[in-house]
Amino acid sequence: MTPTLIALDWGTSSLRAYLLGAGGLVIEECTEPLGIMKIADRNFAAPYDAVTGDWRARWPHLNALASGMIGSAQGWVEAPYARLPAGIDDIAHALVPVPGTSLHIVPGLLQTGDAANVMRGEETQIFGALKIAPELGARGELVLPGTHSKWVSLAKGKVARFETYMTGELFAVLRDHSILGAFAKTGEPPHPRDAENAFLRGVDAVRNGDGRADQLLFSARALVLAGELDPACSLDYLSGLLIGAELASALEERRAAPVLIGDKALCARYRLAFSRFGLDKVDEIEGAAVAGLWAIALAAGLASQ
Amino acid sequence: MTPTLIALDWGTSSLRAYLLGAGGLVIEECTEPLGIMKIADRNFAAPYDAVTGDWRARWPHLNALASGMIGSAQGWVEAPYARLPAGIDDIAHALVPVPGTSLHIVPGLLQTGDAANVMRGEETQIFGALKIAPELGARGELVLPGTHSKWVSLAKGKVARFETYMTGELFAVLRDHSILGAFAKTGEPPHPRDAENAFLRGVDAVRNGDGRADQLLFSARALVLAGELDPACSLDYLSGLLIGAELASALEERRAAPVLIGDKALCARYRLAFSRFGLDKVDEIEGAAVAGLWAIALAAGLASQ
Repeated sequence: MTPTLIALDWGTSSLRAYLLGAGGLVIEECTEPLGIMKIADRNFAAPYDAVTGDWRARWPHLNALASGMIGSAQGWVEAPYARLPAGIDDIAHALVPVPGTSLHIVPGLLQTGDAANVMRGEETQIFGALKIAPELGARGELVLPGTHSKWVSLAKGKVARFETYMTGELFAVLRDHSILGAFAKTGEPPHPRDAENAFLRGVDAVRNGDGRADQLLFSARALVLAGELDPACSLDYLSGLLIGAELASALEERRAAPVLIGDKALCARYRLAFSRFGLDKVDEIEGAAVAGLWAIALAAGLASQ
Repeated sequence: MTPTLIALDWGTSSLRAYLLGAGGLVIEECTEPLGIMKIADRNFAAPYDAVTGDWRARWPHLNALASGMIGSAQGWVEAPYARLPAGIDDIAHALVPVPGTSLHIVPGLLQTGDAANVMRGEETQIFGALKIAPELGARGELVLPGTHSKWVSLAKGKVARFETYMTGELFAVLRDHSILGAFAKTGEPPHPRDAENAFLRGVDAVRNGDGRADQLLFSARALVLAGELDPACSLDYLSGLLIGAELASALEERRAAPVLIGDKALCARYRLAFSRFGLDKVDEIEGAAVAGLWAIALAAGLASQ
């Protein structure tokens, strides 16, 4: 198959590169730990050559398109945020070229006002999801769980508004740097079934407590000291509290069940939590990042069907 | 004045020692960075001698009483938690002696059940506050802001129930280890007036947003990127969000305005936040820890008026 595009998902910690053929099909792919925070002296040309050099040598006329933190102020070239409401054409017309290369960078999205918010990378997954499931454009709701979970409302094929929950980062800093991580540092990891039960107990605690996770956070320690929670499961319970709080807060304002986009294991965890909120059937979209890069490249004329 | 008691407030990071005379008046005092997490090999006898040795040499018959994390599982001798409801006599009858010394340790308090909770050190401040303001015993509400803020409901002179908010620790880990600390690491500190305004803006954001701080946390970054918050003030805004969330949650279930106990600067910050919730006159009790150690020693017969 003849390659038509080099597509890069270039985030904080890793660089995922795809060689795409007709219809956006993946011909080759690789993932390297070359995220922008791992590159010394902001010399981004070096990892770009290391990862895409062979492809470009073989097919010198290929365009390349990158999304993610590579377009941030700390990245290669800053791609200023596009403002809401934003559709795929708004993004495609705002790509920023990297001088001296055939690479373009996708801008992130900016929501202004009191509910100011930003995303960078997720916009590409969103437009990928819309390519895969165009019917979501009318009134769809999306969740992209992760370090900074994004909850996105679509209208008229555009991103209408979104919220950010720092669930993944909160979990990591509490595990690694707070007293709540202390118990799990000693002893064996729990049995998977016990871990899942502790997770669901955390979700339920928030749900029954009216979404007030700030008051419950310390219970991940206190329940252990009171002999009511296995120390080995304290982090699973904490994860349940945090994801439960995210769901309690976000679902309150939602008009429809959201569709999940993201890492498979993390989506499974969210699916489990959703079930406690009465949402047993939550759809999931895979391959959204690649589909989004492809769709944006088409809209921008960097590739053709 | 003749000394009657050595009183120690011995926490995680520091050891505060007081030589008390008649009526619990402070004759001498010192504070050393000899908290239990700073002591190698759990050799607590060494800092105890360093800080109280001279006093004990001069007055060999003095008793000593310590409260705080020195009585935890990681401390010198574990003082098992007393259960709620707990009054000063319940505590005084549950002191744990340190073998080979004239030192006793005050137990912490344990709340069991779904709202399991623990405190260690704060119980002494609470009984000190009750000594200073006995009228609080009937139906008083106390707040002890800090790393782990405690909100305490009193009834019939006893601790009836309490909640913990990890506000101080959350702020510290987010500042030091999350993306939210990034902006404040560069540039000048803000003007105090700007810092206070940003703090109050954070409090108001939570109050207007119905207490949902989890959804607002990321705004401490997004507002800066949107050009709507001075990066130098981002941590003050974050502090406002976290303290605002604590107040929104805790005040919802409270029957009366609480009385503040704790560090003066921190109490001033809470007082400012309280004013945004319509509580302009919040009382404050000083010297609660020393008063509590004295009251407990009297109740246990370790000292006499």
